Amino acid sequence: MITSNSLIKPSLTKIHAFTEEQLQHFSEKLDYRTLKKKELLLGENQVSDGISFILSGSFRFFKKTSHSELTIKFFVETQWLADLESLLTQQPSTNNIEALEDSEIATISLRNIHYLMDAHPSFRKLQSLLADLAIPAAHLATIQSKSPDERYAELLAQHPQWVNRFPQMLIASYLGMTPETLSRVRARM
Amino acid sequence: MITSNSLIKPSLTKIHAFTEEQLQHFSEKLDYRTLKKKELLLGENQVSDGISFILSGSFRFFKKTSHSELTIKFFVETQWLADLESLLTQQPSTNNIEALEDSEIATISLRNIHYLMDAHPSFRKLQSLLADLAIPAAHLATIQSKSPDERYAELLAQHPQWVNRFPQMLIASYLGMTPETLSRVRARM
Repeated sequence: MITSNSLIKPSLTKIHAFTEEQLQHFSEKLDYRTLKKKELLLGENQVSDGISFILSGSFRFFKKTSHSELTIKFFVETQWLADLESLLTQQPSTNNIEALEDSEIATISLRNIHYLMDAHPSFRKLQSLLADLAIPAAHLATIQSKSPDERYAELLAQHPQWVNRFPQMLIASYLGMTPETLSRVRARM
Repeated sequence: MITSNSLIKPSLTKIHAFTEEQLQHFSEKLDYRTLKKKELLLGENQVSDGISFILSGSFRFFKKTSHSELTIKFFVETQWLADLESLLTQQPSTNNIEALEDSEIATISLRNIHYLMDAHPSFRKLQSLLADLAIPAAHLATIQSKSPDERYAELLAQHPQWVNRFPQMLIASYLGMTPETLSRVRARM
């Protein structure tokens, strides 16, 4: 608990100067869970009913299509994770969230987030945790407007550690290119 | 006012069974504004500090790149509109929102949304208005995994009216293809 709080606290104090008492109040609402590699945190048709802080491990947010699985986002330790569309509408998800490694998470339910917001208006600031759950317009712009070489260079600049940590097939999918194109791009660089 | 409320009310009662008094309370917090075609509702480096209901007209949400403008989303009458990333983080936007036609909007500020949430917990349901502001994972998946013909067919199925309403160059950008490719796709169909 002490270890996990030392990871979660900075993610909260970054968005607002919560008091020690508020942080304690928040941490009492967390549920801890471990997931094995390849285990689903959220499957299609399930409702995303809370947000999870990744204590260790990593996840991919993906969408199944008729002939493939598209990697939309990666999430790693010290990030908050949920399906934003499902969370906001409380409708079944059309996406999937899978552990890419054995992972540990701490989850706060939507019910408890609302409970905290009622208990103290400061907790309304938790809203900004949602920003990390959104698909950034910048990623869509990158996919649409940049060459495969530029896309890979951008990934290396922003998330150099992802390249060795995640399977190349998933990196290629995230960058909107085939694994073969990604191989060629890497060979050139 | 009566006319505008008759448009806004259904967008609210769809998400929660607000009382007449609550709807009245909400509508008192709205600011009305008209925009000329090509006028910016939000420019880069401005903070999105409220959400706007489109009474009439349309907008495009776009991102400037080094050599072009990428159309990320279209918004039309009876939709709510904002830059989600900027709204949630209260950081300057990296996107632009421009009127595509002469348009009328009704805006509620973030400050007033919070005021309403304090006044009555029911107003926390306004949260789900944010869902429409997010870039849907489905759109990213479409761009990444479908052929130009499939993408155009999907647009025709989902938003048939957009095709004649908005410039082809913007439709092409939204579908992640060149205007030339879009012309060929249309000629084939």
